[in-house]
Amino acid sequence: MTLSPIPSNTKPDISVYERVESNVRSYCRAIPRQFIRAEGPWMYDSKGGRYLDFLSGCSSLNYGHNHPVLKQALLDYINSDGVTHSLDMHTNAKQAFLEELEATILKPRGLEYKVMFPGPTGTNAVEAALKLARKVTGRSNVIAFTNGFHGMTLGSLACTGNEGKRGGAGVTLTDVSHEPFDGYFGDDIDTADMLEQRLNDPSSGLDPACAILLETVQGEGGLNVASPEWLRKIERIARAHGALLIIDDVQAGCGRTEGFFSFEKSGIKPDIVTMAKSLSGMGLPFALTFFNPELDQWNPGEHNGTFRGNCHAFVTATAALRHFWRTDSFAADIQRRADLLAKSLEQIVADHNGQFKVKGRGMMLGIDVGSGKTATAITRAAFQNGLIIETSGAEDEVVKVLAPLTIDDDVFTVGLRILRHAFHTAMSENKYLAAE
Amino acid sequence: MTLSPIPSNTKPDISVYERVESNVRSYCRAIPRQFIRAEGPWMYDSKGGRYLDFLSGCSSLNYGHNHPVLKQALLDYINSDGVTHSLDMHTNAKQAFLEELEATILKPRGLEYKVMFPGPTGTNAVEAALKLARKVTGRSNVIAFTNGFHGMTLGSLACTGNEGKRGGAGVTLTDVSHEPFDGYFGDDIDTADMLEQRLNDPSSGLDPACAILLETVQGEGGLNVASPEWLRKIERIARAHGALLIIDDVQAGCGRTEGFFSFEKSGIKPDIVTMAKSLSGMGLPFALTFFNPELDQWNPGEHNGTFRGNCHAFVTATAALRHFWRTDSFAADIQRRADLLAKSLEQIVADHNGQFKVKGRGMMLGIDVGSGKTATAITRAAFQNGLIIETSGAEDEVVKVLAPLTIDDDVFTVGLRILRHAFHTAMSENKYLAAE
Amino acid sequence: MTLSPIPSNTKPDISVYERVESNVRSYCRAIPRQFIRAEGPWMYDSKGGRYLDFLSGCSSLNYGHNHPVLKQALLDYINSDGVTHSLDMHTNAKQAFLEELEATILKPRGLEYKVMFPGPTGTNAVEAALKLARKVTGRSNVIAFTNGFHGMTLGSLACTGNEGKRGGAGVTLTDVSHEPFDGYFGDDIDTADMLEQRLNDPSSGLDPACAILLETVQGEGGLNVASPEWLRKIERIARAHGALLIIDDVQAGCGRTEGFFSFEKSGIKPDIVTMAKSLSGMGLPFALTFFNPELDQWNPGEHNGTFRGNCHAFVTATAALRHFWRTDSFAADIQRRADLLAKSLEQIVADHNGQFKVKGRGMMLGIDVGSGKTATAITRAAFQNGLIIETSGAEDEVVKVLAPLTIDDDVFTVGLRILRHAFHTAMSENKYLAAE
Amino acid sequence: MTLSPIPSNTKPDISVYERVESNVRSYCRAIPRQFIRAEGPWMYDSKGGRYLDFLSGCSSLNYGHNHPVLKQALLDYINSDGVTHSLDMHTNAKQAFLEELEATILKPRGLEYKVMFPGPTGTNAVEAALKLARKVTGRSNVIAFTNGFHGMTLGSLACTGNEGKRGGAGVTLTDVSHEPFDGYFGDDIDTADMLEQRLNDPSSGLDPACAILLETVQGEGGLNVASPEWLRKIERIARAHGALLIIDDVQAGCGRTEGFFSFEKSGIKPDIVTMAKSLSGMGLPFALTFFNPELDQWNPGEHNGTFRGNCHAFVTATAALRHFWRTDSFAADIQRRADLLAKSLEQIVADHNGQFKVKGRGMMLGIDVGSGKTATAITRAAFQNGLIIETSGAEDEVVKVLAPLTIDDDVFTVGLRILRHAFHTAMSENKYLAAE
Repeated sequence: MTLSPIPSNTKPDISVYERVESNVRSYCRAIPRQFIRAEGPWMYDSKGGRYLDFLSGCSSLNYGHNHPVLKQALLDYINSDGVTHSLDMHTNAKQAFLEELEATILKPRGLEYKVMFPGPTGTNAVEAALKLARKVTGRSNVIAFTNGFHGMTLGSLACTGNEGKRGGAGVTLTDVSHEPFDGYFGDDIDTADMLEQRLNDPSSGLDPACAILLETVQGEGGLNVASPEWLRKIERIARAHGALLIIDDVQAGCGRTEGFFSFEKSGIKPDIVTMAKSLSGMGLPFALTFFNPELDQWNPGEHNGTFRGNCHAFVTATAALRHFWRTDSFAADIQRRADLLAKSLEQIVADHNGQFKVKGRGMMLGIDVGSGKTATAITRAAFQNGLIIETSGAEDEVVKVLAPLTIDDDVFTVGLRILRHAFHTAMSENKYLAAE
Repeated sequence: MTLSPIPSNTKPDISVYERVESNVRSYCRAIPRQFIRAEGPWMYDSKGGRYLDFLSGCSSLNYGHNHPVLKQALLDYINSDGVTHSLDMHTNAKQAFLEELEATILKPRGLEYKVMFPGPTGTNAVEAALKLARKVTGRSNVIAFTNGFHGMTLGSLACTGNEGKRGGAGVTLTDVSHEPFDGYFGDDIDTADMLEQRLNDPSSGLDPACAILLETVQGEGGLNVASPEWLRKIERIARAHGALLIIDDVQAGCGRTEGFFSFEKSGIKPDIVTMAKSLSGMGLPFALTFFNPELDQWNPGEHNGTFRGNCHAFVTATAALRHFWRTDSFAADIQRRADLLAKSLEQIVADHNGQFKVKGRGMMLGIDVGSGKTATAITRAAFQNGLIIETSGAEDEVVKVLAPLTIDDDVFTVGLRILRHAFHTAMSENKYLAAE
Repeated sequence: MTLSPIPSNTKPDISVYERVESNVRSYCRAIPRQFIRAEGPWMYDSKGGRYLDFLSGCSSLNYGHNHPVLKQALLDYINSDGVTHSLDMHTNAKQAFLEELEATILKPRGLEYKVMFPGPTGTNAVEAALKLARKVTGRSNVIAFTNGFHGMTLGSLACTGNEGKRGGAGVTLTDVSHEPFDGYFGDDIDTADMLEQRLNDPSSGLDPACAILLETVQGEGGLNVASPEWLRKIERIARAHGALLIIDDVQAGCGRTEGFFSFEKSGIKPDIVTMAKSLSGMGLPFALTFFNPELDQWNPGEHNGTFRGNCHAFVTATAALRHFWRTDSFAADIQRRADLLAKSLEQIVADHNGQFKVKGRGMMLGIDVGSGKTATAITRAAFQNGLIIETSGAEDEVVKVLAPLTIDDDVFTVGLRILRHAFHTAMSENKYLAAE
Repeated sequence: MTLSPIPSNTKPDISVYERVESNVRSYCRAIPRQFIRAEGPWMYDSKGGRYLDFLSGCSSLNYGHNHPVLKQALLDYINSDGVTHSLDMHTNAKQAFLEELEATILKPRGLEYKVMFPGPTGTNAVEAALKLARKVTGRSNVIAFTNGFHGMTLGSLACTGNEGKRGGAGVTLTDVSHEPFDGYFGDDIDTADMLEQRLNDPSSGLDPACAILLETVQGEGGLNVASPEWLRKIERIARAHGALLIIDDVQAGCGRTEGFFSFEKSGIKPDIVTMAKSLSGMGLPFALTFFNPELDQWNPGEHNGTFRGNCHAFVTATAALRHFWRTDSFAADIQRRADLLAKSLEQIVADHNGQFKVKGRGMMLGIDVGSGKTATAITRAAFQNGLIIETSGAEDEVVKVLAPLTIDDDVFTVGLRILRHAFHTAMSENKYLAAE
């Protein structure tokens, strides 16, 4: 098999979507193909096309599509009539997952977290985290950050910065204060100091907080990175003011930015961590909320949900932890690919005289091109050459690379070349258009 | 194989749950077994036990565990490397599902609903419904009902009546008015008339509503049934006052109470319908929000979610629709079993001199025994004889039968006998205790 | 001086109001005269007109305009350079008021209330009451009633039923549940029982309440009367559920409905009472919040306001308590006038074949004529004969008599005759119009 | 009469306050005297004491106590049986006030504001302003500022920064974002630019605002001053983002800081202005909300209140406008006194080696001494020498001079000497204590 994508130019019959599916659908508009098969970094469409996937289900497919080890584990489980849906009853699938998680992830990192199955999506995990923080502290106000994204149900949405998403609520979103993220006002202004000043000031209008909630790298918000120093300061501020520190690792976790958790190298120990997306390894719905044992003040069933016991996801998640995280070699692979990525993106920036900027961390990098229009022109050009890639940021101004962490270096290089070419194409058109 | 359960009396090693899982877990406390296999109505534990499942994943397993047709469809799909996770991109799995849904469910019922994939859980479906109703009407207040249950994320939780669940929010739940459900004040008082009086009264304090949201049979709230007359009156009131009618069919839908939708025989046409639980057929996370086409005023991506494109669920859902709903025979089977169930429960009531009451509709029936303590004694006695069954209602006072809709009549009869026996056992103990 | 009004038909120059005052003004539209003097029940306009005042500043002038005893006390105080504005510092005016209040009102009624000066208006008193109830109980939800009116600032407005007023808020009004008032669903339905059922039901969606807030006679809501039995039941329910009972006596208090407080004869002992309007006796801004001493958990200054120490009002309020309430004779006068009023209104109802209905209690009576249009025709006809009278109710359907409590029986009779005549006039026009 | 205060050392009998009045009282604790008379800057107590009043009813007595011109106007009006309480009906007192306001204040300043009588207190004026801004724009979010104070009813309290006051609400305060005031992060950081960045950023989490609400000098918040440049920038930002600019001039208006309005010299034209405190001139409850005519979209009665027509206040307010504001001489007097004040305070700062800081503007100046403990020691020392003076700021760290604007220069000098002495006394004690 060659390493190249084979874009197909014939659009499939999509009349049923037009006829029956809601207008709320979005990705399929920019990527008007019908996919029938997927393997590793590749997606295959109904017209014979083959696409390289630098979107990875928004970081839900960190191990690529249908990884053979995970797939086999799932097939075996289904074939044996393993329990599929178990509410929160005990199953061997659940036991295996918890034991693997404890042994492979928690213990080696010195984390004694309790684990909660909050329902199978990231927003479930965040809603559970918010409930717990409010219950334990007896306070209601959450400090979230500019450009943060935490989900679309009402509690999580209140913590999300995006105006279009917020407007969709149709009600006032309460009990959250949005404060400036690291670097929001430029490099010279320390926004953690600002937050501390406001919290220390009993007349600042900032109500006592139950929690400070943040992503260490803002996935939807434009790949803004919180520095380790800022994170440690925020942790100290949270502790000093009786607020819990919640890291939303839904997008940046599972190896995307560094270790299994995105905050491992920073030295902080969050009180609560939320995780979803790539947790199941194969893209199955699965989410967790981790927290310090002393916070485990839940009454049985106080938070629940029908699909907390998605055993298929337990099976693939267990296989993923076992296959990728028992040794350090995967982390080393990620680091090598991240370096390759960084180098390639810096080259693209250099191609364009440094007018753009690389943002992000690890395998969660992108290029800020200053406008959503430009970024979209670039992703469109990439798609025409068989590369699926999307934008991020308040104005969609960042071209975001979310390649599988498992991608072959050679294939990765091919994809990055297509991306470089797409920048050239889009910027040439830009110049052409500007010259008219 | 005999038709009888084989309860195992040895509890499995569950130390990992105690050590790592949150206290919020609940079902596993009343059902302290570890399950390793499940098929049809049966669940098998790690100690050789076999249990008859009258809980069915809270109505998420209407077709039983691991139905062979669904299971095979899923195995085939996985084996072919079908796309597992697709965000909201087009896949052949999604197309097949939408076409089957349109042809088998919507068209024959004269429903022209648009279909939205709101994320894979019931609460996602409800949150999306609320957003849409608020957006389209420009109003914020939702009318929900006493004993209603709609989910655990903040928007849905505000519509839920249960105090313990509500208290978990840790913030004030806003923009919802809870009105008395059908029969709440007894048979002589028409609560729809009351609602109408309040809506007609510009000084009642009931703000103009964007929507009236209800379950036709309240699954968690104690199997309270809305009569067709009441439903039609509520529909008329909603229309007269510019509110949308939302039926939450998450638990009562998918054949549980009558046709595919729980409201088919009532003659109403809801503006919005939410559905989840048994939708995938096999217990995989999957939810939908249906609505009238003129309500489809979403902007692309205005509501989204990582796991909207859970293709495994599309595959099993398609197989379920095709296998069970293309003809009327399954509906006839359900009716026959529902009659059997009703007869058995009435007999139990008669056994105890009519002091109890049968509640619910279709295959969603139960017996109100007046107190949670009694109901729990009954379900515990049933479990000791190999029957998994749970309670419902504000005080857990209803013993609720949620058998698979596909259960063999003979097996069903066995289960109902165990239940009858459990009533005897528990009530004898009661008398004994009372006599002390 | 004759006892008759002398309506003036020339409207005064009101261009400055049109030019400078906001459109929000209302009473001056129905009563387009400019008043220059007022004494007892009479108001004198700039064109020589004399009007009998059956509006009494919406019950703020229970002792009539400029009562000579109160007026003299105020003149003496001002002449002596008594402190006018004192924040919450001690003044002889405040001391005298508190001592008079204690001796004349509280002690004889066996009430040991603490008294708070919450700011000079009814809505200040209600806001303070709500804060206190929430603080002491640690709960946020207030139970208020259909057709209740409690003020226009955000906290009080949330407790108010009127949709037009509520809509003015421009934000969602939270933390209040509006329940049906006594008689709301007709005589056969006991709404206190309904409330109790909902509070006893842990799944009713009615959150635990910090307080039950009500008017014993709903002044703005259409003169709906809470029966003593209902009040006692509500008091019992409040106590049983840990909620405080707050009586808003802003309009119905100060002798308007029976004793000094509107609830004296019912046997209840509210935890908190709010009072304003006629408290100063002369129409000066003044309000109080009374509460049981054990509720006095305020921090100093936790609620404050610039005009809490309006000493002019202390002076006239002291004079009013001394003059009217030291003996029982005033109460007897009120009773006699109330009987006269009731008899006259019943006669009017009889004139029109019983199609109307007398509502209210004491000197707070009116006639429900079924529509705001009719009621307005009646008040307009009355005004043309020199009687100032207004409407009340959700649809303005009640012609409401709020004569001074001090009105001479002869003058009262004249006013009531004008009212009777106005009914004849308006109803004849109605018939004429209907016959066309 | 000498110019000196005569402090009395015997405390009066205040048992009735202990017995009957709520613990919420505050000023009377620091100033435990009973006052019986007041004239100009002087307050006389029941034990023969005479106190110089540098509190002035928190700026409600800008013209001193019982100014003879205002007092005579009021006596004449009362003697003539002028209407005392008029709801919002027309009276000659109201007409005279509106005409004087138009001719003396609005026209000369080129302001075409409409005037609304929102109820007699500052918080009424703010609540009305908020309602109007929300109604006109259709948005709900208000931008208020750190250390802002706007009142104690729920709508205004949500805009207030003080944690203790906010906590008193007992409910979540919604629909307000608190942003940093001018200078909040030091002189080098322009907080208006920060606000603009957040409003321009569609992912900042700052919802579109109906209004930006601020005091030009923060009275309760510590005499923080908004510079004219900052005000103009804020005005421009408000216009650019469709938000109304509301200046809360309740404390800083009526000549306290510069012209009649506090913003006259800055060049801004607020869309809405709120005013109360010294508006009546004599300390009677009175408040106004001014706004641009195109905003006058109120329905009649949409906001109302019993004490909107406090005619005594109209009379004294008219007299005050006529006496003080028809010519420029009063403004010149204020300026001269403000210069004297500034010089004296700078001298005090110099006395203490510049460790303190003068804050504020015009006759609204104070000294920031860094801690509430120190400030309270100073005001206590001043009181012992017959000077009534209070603190301000988040930690009560500012000694605030609110002398009458009408105070004789000689008397003013006496008071400022007492203040200087009080600083010496308190700081000596401090040193002594620190040395221990």
